[in-house]
Amino acid sequence: MPNNPKKDGRQNIPLSTVRRLPMYLRLLYRLDELGRERVSSEMLAHLFGGTASQIRQDLRYFGPLGTSRNGYSVQKLIGVCEKGLCLVGGTSCIVVGIGNLGRALALYAGFQEKEFAIKALFDNDPAVIGSRVGNNIVQPSSAIGKVVQKEGIRLAFLTVPASAAQDVANNLVAVGIEGILNFAPVQLMVPDFVVVEDVQMLNSLMVLNYLVHEKRRYRKKT
Amino acid sequence: MPNNPKKDGRQNIPLSTVRRLPMYLRLLYRLDELGRERVSSEMLAHLFGGTASQIRQDLRYFGPLGTSRNGYSVQKLIGVCEKGLCLVGGTSCIVVGIGNLGRALALYAGFQEKEFAIKALFDNDPAVIGSRVGNNIVQPSSAIGKVVQKEGIRLAFLTVPASAAQDVANNLVAVGIEGILNFAPVQLMVPDFVVVEDVQMLNSLMVLNYLVHEKRRYRKKT
Repeated sequence: MPNNPKKDGRQNIPLSTVRRLPMYLRLLYRLDELGRERVSSEMLAHLFGGTASQIRQDLRYFGPLGTSRNGYSVQKLIGVCEKGLCLVGGTSCIVVGIGNLGRALALYAGFQEKEFAIKALFDNDPAVIGSRVGNNIVQPSSAIGKVVQKEGIRLAFLTVPASAAQDVANNLVAVGIEGILNFAPVQLMVPDFVVVEDVQMLNSLMVLNYLVHEKRRYRKKT
Repeated sequence: MPNNPKKDGRQNIPLSTVRRLPMYLRLLYRLDELGRERVSSEMLAHLFGGTASQIRQDLRYFGPLGTSRNGYSVQKLIGVCEKGLCLVGGTSCIVVGIGNLGRALALYAGFQEKEFAIKALFDNDPAVIGSRVGNNIVQPSSAIGKVVQKEGIRLAFLTVPASAAQDVANNLVAVGIEGILNFAPVQLMVPDFVVVEDVQMLNSLMVLNYLVHEKRRYRKKT
């Protein structure tokens, strides 16, 4: 419940709220770009496609934000969402598996804008090791542990083939990685203290395909 | 409710179930590869990380599958999930925006394995138009309508920059695209008869980062 703070003042934020925060943030950045200073929960709901009460409920986890009658300050909401998402201060990441997708991720500017810095790239293919991708030179996978420990890195993008994913994940966990953004089409097994977030493009495509079929079937019937 | 079929014999399948089906399928393919012929809902639940009753509930939408006491036939379940997801018969797609990510998607073998064929690639950069990516030559965006209509294509991957995404989406809808797999960090506005499925890598990274922070905070307290 939102009004049930933990002892350290933080509240238990449901995962569903956490997943909406990046989407709110994106809208808020856009409003800020457009020079808008205040925004109501109704307007956010309209832009977001949800309800105003859900937005207010979600934002309440982050403490009092002023009455929503005058709307919220866009800048203040941005600060609240960024702080809520622990985005303040920057985060270092590595990419493991420099195929086409790993390369695209290593070059993706959107991560840097949000202070996610890609610090190192790794692969085990001698033909790829030593090549430059953006600001980084691809290093051998055997160097992961040294780099992760030296730089205090906690997050890794996993873009190796499915057949190698679990072994590589085991190695990442062993060297101290605490969060894996997993692009390999595999359900990774990791210890409790490690977080895996899956980006499964094929699954998303399957769901899209299903929903298009359903919509067409519905149109035919009506 | 699972036991409330529509008039055409199909049942209303909740989106949460639809989203789990690709994950079940992946496990089933793996079991099939390993030569396993039958699987219980308990075993699937163990592999999947859910409960056996949820699995049984999800599968019940697809009709009677035999008693789960003897387990389900792996092959039969694969067929059921593939049919449930409308995966039978193959689906043609286009990729619009051939930057690093569009290129990686165009070359990604995982889509073809599930009979999603990438039929054409489009970009509006003269430096990219005409170049070969895999089996396709990049075409100018002005040709999208003609190709989509000629080939009867319904699905598009959208990998253009954020600033162009809405305009390109409008064009895709105008030429008959019914489903967009959107990689641009933008909430697309589309008509009711079009489906958008977002793959927001930055959002996933933000959620991962948050969960890692939460876990660390929890460890420190205990």
